[in-house]
Amino acid sequence: MIFLTRKAEFSAAHYYWVESWSDEENWRVFGKCANRNGHGHNYTLEVTVTGEVDPVSGFVVDLKELKDILEREVVSVYDHRHLNLEVPEFRTAVPTTENIAIAIWNRLDGKIPNARLHRVRVYEMPDLFADFYGEKA
Amino acid sequence: MIFLTRKAEFSAAHYYWVESWSDEENWRVFGKCANRNGHGHNYTLEVTVTGEVDPVSGFVVDLKELKDILEREVVSVYDHRHLNLEVPEFRTAVPTTENIAIAIWNRLDGKIPNARLHRVRVYEMPDLFADFYGEKA
Amino acid sequence: MIFLTRKAEFSAAHYYWVESWSDEENWRVFGKCANRNGHGHNYTLEVTVTGEVDPVSGFVVDLKELKDILEREVVSVYDHRHLNLEVPEFRTAVPTTENIAIAIWNRLDGKIPNARLHRVRVYEMPDLFADFYGEKA
Amino acid sequence: MIFLTRKAEFSAAHYYWVESWSDEENWRVFGKCANRNGHGHNYTLEVTVTGEVDPVSGFVVDLKELKDILEREVVSVYDHRHLNLEVPEFRTAVPTTENIAIAIWNRLDGKIPNARLHRVRVYEMPDLFADFYGEKA
Amino acid sequence: MIFLTRKAEFSAAHYYWVESWSDEENWRVFGKCANRNGHGHNYTLEVTVTGEVDPVSGFVVDLKELKDILEREVVSVYDHRHLNLEVPEFRTAVPTTENIAIAIWNRLDGKIPNARLHRVRVYEMPDLFADFYGEKA
Amino acid sequence: MIFLTRKAEFSAAHYYWVESWSDEENWRVFGKCANRNGHGHNYTLEVTVTGEVDPVSGFVVDLKELKDILEREVVSVYDHRHLNLEVPEFRTAVPTTENIAIAIWNRLDGKIPNARLHRVRVYEMPDLFADFYGEKA
Repeated sequence: MIFLTRKAEFSAAHYYWVESWSDEENWRVFGKCANRNGHGHNYTLEVTVTGEVDPVSGFVVDLKELKDILEREVVSVYDHRHLNLEVPEFRTAVPTTENIAIAIWNRLDGKIPNARLHRVRVYEMPDLFADFYGEKA
Repeated sequence: MIFLTRKAEFSAAHYYWVESWSDEENWRVFGKCANRNGHGHNYTLEVTVTGEVDPVSGFVVDLKELKDILEREVVSVYDHRHLNLEVPEFRTAVPTTENIAIAIWNRLDGKIPNARLHRVRVYEMPDLFADFYGEKA
Repeated sequence: MIFLTRKAEFSAAHYYWVESWSDEENWRVFGKCANRNGHGHNYTLEVTVTGEVDPVSGFVVDLKELKDILEREVVSVYDHRHLNLEVPEFRTAVPTTENIAIAIWNRLDGKIPNARLHRVRVYEMPDLFADFYGEKA
Repeated sequence: MIFLTRKAEFSAAHYYWVESWSDEENWRVFGKCANRNGHGHNYTLEVTVTGEVDPVSGFVVDLKELKDILEREVVSVYDHRHLNLEVPEFRTAVPTTENIAIAIWNRLDGKIPNARLHRVRVYEMPDLFADFYGEKA
Repeated sequence: MIFLTRKAEFSAAHYYWVESWSDEENWRVFGKCANRNGHGHNYTLEVTVTGEVDPVSGFVVDLKELKDILEREVVSVYDHRHLNLEVPEFRTAVPTTENIAIAIWNRLDGKIPNARLHRVRVYEMPDLFADFYGEKA
Repeated sequence: MIFLTRKAEFSAAHYYWVESWSDEENWRVFGKCANRNGHGHNYTLEVTVTGEVDPVSGFVVDLKELKDILEREVVSVYDHRHLNLEVPEFRTAVPTTENIAIAIWNRLDGKIPNARLHRVRVYEMPDLFADFYGEKA
């Protein structure tokens, strides 16, 4: 068993807001992230898959295929988008780093041939990131 | 003469759009940056000042004061904001990396006691940045 | 369960010295780190907490509160200090990267509301770091 | 139990090729990595060891000794070499990031006094890395 | 006048060897870089262009076009190649960081519409880079 | 003419204090840097030299020799030292980033065969650095 991690990046806008809360409650909990004009980040995504190394090719997963899957399932949907306004899973869920990691897990799980998704890490900033290992963790 | 550089960061949303152009022209020139829902970045700002080193303190500029000026003049205005919608200079000018560097120069020029502003560098992404040295350059 | 990591930084001086050893033994084991005038580092701290994501706020932990806890419990005590001379836990224990990680764990454990401390990582240099997961690891 | 990680770097050339495959198959699977003139990378190696912290020295492992072991067992053999042509384990195995991580594990396992090898991480590029934890993982 | 810099990356193999020198001379001057099996690096390229900011678009240069030029003129020729064996300018010139920077300048100069090439920076490693500003510098 | 830059690192302790000032004045100007127990940093040094590229070797300067000069003239004197207590130039001058850059320039100027020292850059932290180009700048 080996673990292979590939990074990808996307730049997106978002804001934090809970509809069922008052304005005061939103600003108290979310601070400047509650500004509904939105702000944004360069997100960095690290996707880790695990499996047996193929004894002939030396690959746990076809790198080109993995890159294509990340592009198709995540980057093309999130990059240069407003997460709250354009990405379905954030119509209701607040696009916190935690929820973005879970959403990306759900988009990727079961899509990677011959390997198992192990971890999704999302950096919102270089000094803040969330890790999700699926429900099993 | 010595040159001292201090970095600061802000996270903001923006989009690229020229009102006098057709939709087609905007999408042709700006690509996915033309999405008017906005997207965003973690911007990194490097401000370089120059002057004589004070022979007693060893400082070209008071670091605490420089940090406060960057916070007051730039970060508090740009951070967690939508540049097009909330920052006056981008009501008309497109918030490209080039224009952001010029705008920050204009906000800082003449505000730094005992030192001269030398360069403003703005990173939109780690692989793209603009430098402005004022009109003299 | 999700894991959220926040970084913080502090700059401190230290040296390595065991009182019960001879000078020769200290220099043999610790090399130039045994210089009792002290030297120093820009330490980077990564604190990982784990818990359930709040279904409404999307947070595993209040980020502002976490930042305040790191500042109050660690950064305000360690930053711009001489670890051997000014931080109580290093009056006796040598301030190695390993011991700093354990000390920070002890300072933070039980202080973070609604989440469990999972890991403390301390970088002394970009090419050297220690991880502590508490006694359970 | 604590985990200590030390980084090292080596620059090497390699290519991907399976002798038992046709040229077409090699180019289909490996793309431009199949160019047998070779290309190369600045590899970054992170070696993590685990053990008890010595209550007197505060060390889980003698840092100087660990650095010497990495230099002797890995860096001196891989750095400024062509992996396929000069490193025995890649005469037959394809030098993928996965196989390099396994090979370095095998070179280091059992060589580190008083500590247990926990993980070998190899970065081929900043956006691609493999982790190996030994056969137990 | 503003300066815009864009980064690109390529991974390549090379070695240092002067045909007119003896083996001894080559090894004395170039050390382990003289290994003719080759070794390799992840090179990082920073290309800086300068010009007036277009008052309408806010661009000094069309970013998509600049990226395409770097890809076509440099990356497609250097990436996953052996510089000595496959890139014409290094059939005779030694592919030192200095010579790579000059060669890339020569490949790009005059190819960037509406802007002037200002600087080519090439990193061979994070701790070594060369800058070339053309013959005028 | 080409410019070649090499990085080096040193870890040192220091504090800021002007003997002719009162305690109050020192703390007002230098803040927590005035703590005379000292604190410390991982300093990064970038030394840029300039000259003609040798048409045969492709070098502007012998890299091994440059590395040895940096080690002998700077790193062996500053690394794992207390700058105020052990490095002669800081017995009187305050070891600010500005003064460290000037001091390193003075240690290196005239010592590099066949090339001219162009710039000394010193990072005290990743977000603060000073550049010195000699008295001519």
